Amino acid sequence: MKFGRILRDSPDGKIARLVVAEPEKGRVVDLASAAALHYVARTHATPDAARRLANLVFPGSMAAALSFGDHLKDKAAEIVAARGDDASLAIDGVEWLPASDPPVLRDGLNFLGHIKGWSAKMGRTVPEALERVVPYCQHTNSTVIGADAVVPWPSYIKHMDYELELGWVVGRLGHNLTPDNALDCLFGVTLYNDFSARDLQADELAIGMGGTKSKNFAHAVGPWITTLDEFKDLYSIEMEVRLNGETKGKGLSSEVLWSVDEVLAFISLGEYLQPGDVIGSGTLGGGSALELGIQLQPGDVVEIKASNIGVLRNVMGQPTDVGWWPTPQTGKATS
Amino acid sequence: MKFGRILRDSPDGKIARLVVAEPEKGRVVDLASAAALHYVARTHATPDAARRLANLVFPGSMAAALSFGDHLKDKAAEIVAARGDDASLAIDGVEWLPASDPPVLRDGLNFLGHIKGWSAKMGRTVPEALERVVPYCQHTNSTVIGADAVVPWPSYIKHMDYELELGWVVGRLGHNLTPDNALDCLFGVTLYNDFSARDLQADELAIGMGGTKSKNFAHAVGPWITTLDEFKDLYSIEMEVRLNGETKGKGLSSEVLWSVDEVLAFISLGEYLQPGDVIGSGTLGGGSALELGIQLQPGDVVEIKASNIGVLRNVMGQPTDVGWWPTPQTGKATS
Repeated sequence: MKFGRILRDSPDGKIARLVVAEPEKGRVVDLASAAALHYVARTHATPDAARRLANLVFPGSMAAALSFGDHLKDKAAEIVAARGDDASLAIDGVEWLPASDPPVLRDGLNFLGHIKGWSAKMGRTVPEALERVVPYCQHTNSTVIGADAVVPWPSYIKHMDYELELGWVVGRLGHNLTPDNALDCLFGVTLYNDFSARDLQADELAIGMGGTKSKNFAHAVGPWITTLDEFKDLYSIEMEVRLNGETKGKGLSSEVLWSVDEVLAFISLGEYLQPGDVIGSGTLGGGSALELGIQLQPGDVVEIKASNIGVLRNVMGQPTDVGWWPTPQTGKATS
Repeated sequence: MKFGRILRDSPDGKIARLVVAEPEKGRVVDLASAAALHYVARTHATPDAARRLANLVFPGSMAAALSFGDHLKDKAAEIVAARGDDASLAIDGVEWLPASDPPVLRDGLNFLGHIKGWSAKMGRTVPEALERVVPYCQHTNSTVIGADAVVPWPSYIKHMDYELELGWVVGRLGHNLTPDNALDCLFGVTLYNDFSARDLQADELAIGMGGTKSKNFAHAVGPWITTLDEFKDLYSIEMEVRLNGETKGKGLSSEVLWSVDEVLAFISLGEYLQPGDVIGSGTLGGGSALELGIQLQPGDVVEIKASNIGVLRNVMGQPTDVGWWPTPQTGKATS
């Protein structure tokens, strides 16, 4: 199954709704609407109580929906089968929200081709440390955007890039996992375009505290999450990135430094995987424009694609002045 | 005023409650309890409706309470004045939760003494980049602990340290701020002990994606948040750290690389400050044991202290086996 989030009009303005996406049928099913109808028919709930319960169980927040535990997929399947026809919308023209609203948004560095290609272009030697410690960073969750969204471009960014990644979506709380049980916490897979400012990234890498202004202007996640059961093998997913309709990079999700179960288990050590968390797979080899010597321009259309998922399309916005940038404190810390 | 969060018994088990701390009176006031009494007396709400409304407006989540905007301090003052005596508990023996449950937990690197002292001990040259880009990292929010909590010590950590920091707590949504208006988003100040594993930190710095296993086992935040109006000057806060009762470091919050308004404004560029976010001030010079050549031991009592706030005390736990650690992938990425 495929789970996503859309915006719908309401008397209170636009509100988030959880949907099952059925692209093969050209529709999405609004789960709270379908569930309310189902509760009335099956349990004789009053319509008002049924609506309240349905919106509690199938809230607009993916993190909140997954926080109820393992019921989401089975209950949604039952409800879509019973009342999907009565609560569906045409998939064309829906306004996508990010597929999840992650409590914590992380990003890995794991495909060998990109580790080597990106490091070379950034003038770095691949550090041996990432053969001892599974590399990942933490991003803000406040700038996650969905499919078809225009990508904000703050004017302090000159060298703009895309990154072709999968997003591992966490389905249940996980702590001190091992590779043997880590995949039990994986709800499904989405697409993650980790847009990046290569000019700022150079300074942020030198500091060593992770990407901030080079990363946090936009994290595209979507269009939906395909549940784990629909993947026979997490290492044979076909991935592709297109720039203005032209394929710029493609390959399989096979050449990894660390296995997906090792990545999830490692992240859970000492801390928690939380329902709705999104973990970037790391960029596929050749999955950034940096590796090709290309820079993104305002108005560019970037599409990233994966088998069993679909296409995450975004349009680069126009550079926007943010009004302030710090004056260098030359010599204040280094002298 | 001082705002914190505690655990209280309920028929559903222990639940989080928002409190006003009045250490000078030896008490905390449970805001939802006081508000419910106030609503009944003032507006003739039914007791049940008053309880529902009071728990909505003064929820156990600091982030949720601050999300309602600017009313918290004034409304809480009114309610404590009216019914504080009827809804107070002795401050001794309360079970503190972290003062906030941050949507995003960040940490800066800003006191010049620590930048130089820590860099020297870690064998690093201070990078010029942090004179161009305000340095900060992002941590998980899943392992924030409160005052008096035992600090989890996963056994993969050998070299354990404390860090004496203030925590800037965000009170309202902020985006593309400038130093002129950034402090409008600052609700108050708390204490933040950013416990750190110096052995793992060396590898994580080499990777450059920020601290993960060296940082995310515990972030102590508390005991409460003192509102901004109680500070005449953010650069003359007296700070101190004690190890097993003995002062190990102290000083004023004065010697910064970037001003607090610059730090907040910079973080807000392209992304969002969200209500309840906690931003570590960076460690005070001499505010880590690393700078003194000391390593923490299980059972050690660490207290960090700041004027106008109080003392954040924690006890180091016993090392606990987490069951798995990755096998090095020697040569897989670097060959």
